[in-house]
Amino acid sequence: MLSRLLETIAPLPTHGAAAAQEHLDNLTKPPGSLGRLEEIALRLALVRGGPPSVAHPVIFTFAADHGVTVEGVSAYPQSVTAQMVENFLRGGAAVNVLARQAGARVVVADFGVANPVGAAPALVARRIGPGTANIAVGPAMTREQAVEAIEAGAGLAEEAIAAGADLLGTGEMGIGNTTAASAITAAITGAAAEIVTGRGTGVDDVAWRRKVEVVRRALAVNAPNARDGLGVLERLGGFEIGGLVGVILAAAAHRVPVALDGFISGAAALIAVSLASAARDVLFASHRSAEPGHVMALGHLGLEPYLDLSMRLGEGTGAVLFIHLARAAALIWTEMATFKSAGVDGQRA
Amino acid sequence: MLSRLLETIAPLPTHGAAAAQEHLDNLTKPPGSLGRLEEIALRLALVRGGPPSVAHPVIFTFAADHGVTVEGVSAYPQSVTAQMVENFLRGGAAVNVLARQAGARVVVADFGVANPVGAAPALVARRIGPGTANIAVGPAMTREQAVEAIEAGAGLAEEAIAAGADLLGTGEMGIGNTTAASAITAAITGAAAEIVTGRGTGVDDVAWRRKVEVVRRALAVNAPNARDGLGVLERLGGFEIGGLVGVILAAAAHRVPVALDGFISGAAALIAVSLASAARDVLFASHRSAEPGHVMALGHLGLEPYLDLSMRLGEGTGAVLFIHLARAAALIWTEMATFKSAGVDGQRA
Repeated sequence: MLSRLLETIAPLPTHGAAAAQEHLDNLTKPPGSLGRLEEIALRLALVRGGPPSVAHPVIFTFAADHGVTVEGVSAYPQSVTAQMVENFLRGGAAVNVLARQAGARVVVADFGVANPVGAAPALVARRIGPGTANIAVGPAMTREQAVEAIEAGAGLAEEAIAAGADLLGTGEMGIGNTTAASAITAAITGAAAEIVTGRGTGVDDVAWRRKVEVVRRALAVNAPNARDGLGVLERLGGFEIGGLVGVILAAAAHRVPVALDGFISGAAALIAVSLASAARDVLFASHRSAEPGHVMALGHLGLEPYLDLSMRLGEGTGAVLFIHLARAAALIWTEMATFKSAGVDGQRA
Repeated sequence: MLSRLLETIAPLPTHGAAAAQEHLDNLTKPPGSLGRLEEIALRLALVRGGPPSVAHPVIFTFAADHGVTVEGVSAYPQSVTAQMVENFLRGGAAVNVLARQAGARVVVADFGVANPVGAAPALVARRIGPGTANIAVGPAMTREQAVEAIEAGAGLAEEAIAAGADLLGTGEMGIGNTTAASAITAAITGAAAEIVTGRGTGVDDVAWRRKVEVVRRALAVNAPNARDGLGVLERLGGFEIGGLVGVILAAAAHRVPVALDGFISGAAALIAVSLASAARDVLFASHRSAEPGHVMALGHLGLEPYLDLSMRLGEGTGAVLFIHLARAAALIWTEMATFKSAGVDGQRA
């Protein structure tokens, strides 16, 4: 399945760009005066190959645990991953609140939470294992598990696309996953551990220095190859990140736009784009996270974020906020009057 | 009425800030991890003196003409002001599209459009005159007209507040009004004409130099006093800007938050705050406009914008986009689970 997906992903055709720009310039506003909203509209139109629409957005909030938490890299205990999954299922977390506002469906999937999650019909089980192994001492998972995680995420994305989803958002929960994302970002961008490692949920100076050291050890022990995205996932994890790689690849294969959330999603995007460089064309960087490694990831991906609100929660909260901008851009395209239809003098004085 | 309004405006009480912060920190997320969304929630709660709500936002799109257009400062002819008002009334302009998306009502008011606007029941007539006089040769309006414009805007805001509006947005249309806004911004912030003058709807280099020269002449001829906000409005205009000053003052008097749009709205805010400094407390800078003078205005007001999308259309398009962020912040406050209610370990490891 993965190789079929990778073969399907092709660069977007560019022949529609001039006509799309002309459409935007005929709307009743000075050309370019809606700034990056016009850029979003143009890119959405090119991804879809037609008028943009953000009627059925779906956010994928994938959860998994990380063996590296035994190194003391997080401000919260591992039990919080399962507790937050239950919070997602009850609709009380930030991503639920923001998704209700934005009219987005949230798909909560267990990709490998260590502690038991209470049974709930809405929880999608895609458990690859009971959390990854500790990347400070060896690989996060097997090659087979890496493929399995990507394919599971891709499968969920394809189900949503078949049901009409027109914008996919990435999100995650996993105590310890900023450590994995830091290691992945360092491995693929080549940036130093202390540059890509931030404070995650809010560790103090001592724990931050420990976290940097853990990222360094993970890179030294696993010796990931920047050009082998699957190997980076296998060695540095995590299962939920693999799932998001799959979401991105499936979206790229089906030409559905993806709103990337923050730092962890950026790490997933780095892996996805290393597997299929044209996947980049469908990615929208929803926001600039407060995590320092996110800037490195976005720079490597060549993406400029749309929101900059110092958020660092994950879950998909940035992606879901971006839905409003994407929908605004789509509505500008489809609902605004043209100079001609409105009888407004479009000729400059 | 204006003096009554000014007397009513008082600094916000600060005694609720600690309890508000505690409420935000009890929600199921690491403290501060929603970044500036939390700042918005906190400020909304302090303005309202209770839980924030953005259920009934109203955007005020005030239109008027500017005598200074005879100097050739705009890329579009004056007739476009009236044509765009008709576009607003038919729902085809950008602000209409975005307001429908955000569930906001748009109040379109004629504060002094030069060309006749076709009769429409939805148009609110508050004509102060048939456009302002040319500020390059003398004052824009009389002192009486300045007071009248402010009171008319305040009256419309008070009507909306009485009908339940819980967030007011400012917006405008008026060919030539970036010239007036540049002059006002220079007069109040002390910045030089070439710093606060931008390209408006998109003038070329020659017209931009002419526009800078016109702003210089307007300042020289009218000699505005930075500390006399009413005098600045009288001398530099325009009628729609006066109306927005009134909206801001009424909102401040009633403790209703205001989403400021871009550069023209920023000029109105400079005047409003010079009349009643505590009015600043209810202002939210929705976005950073591509107009260079806007940065100077926001700096003077001590406001940090929330969106930065290189927009420069006006109409209220930035204010209406901000509604989504304000509503997100309000919903975070009211709908998110707490660590206790969700059974999530809030104690850090």
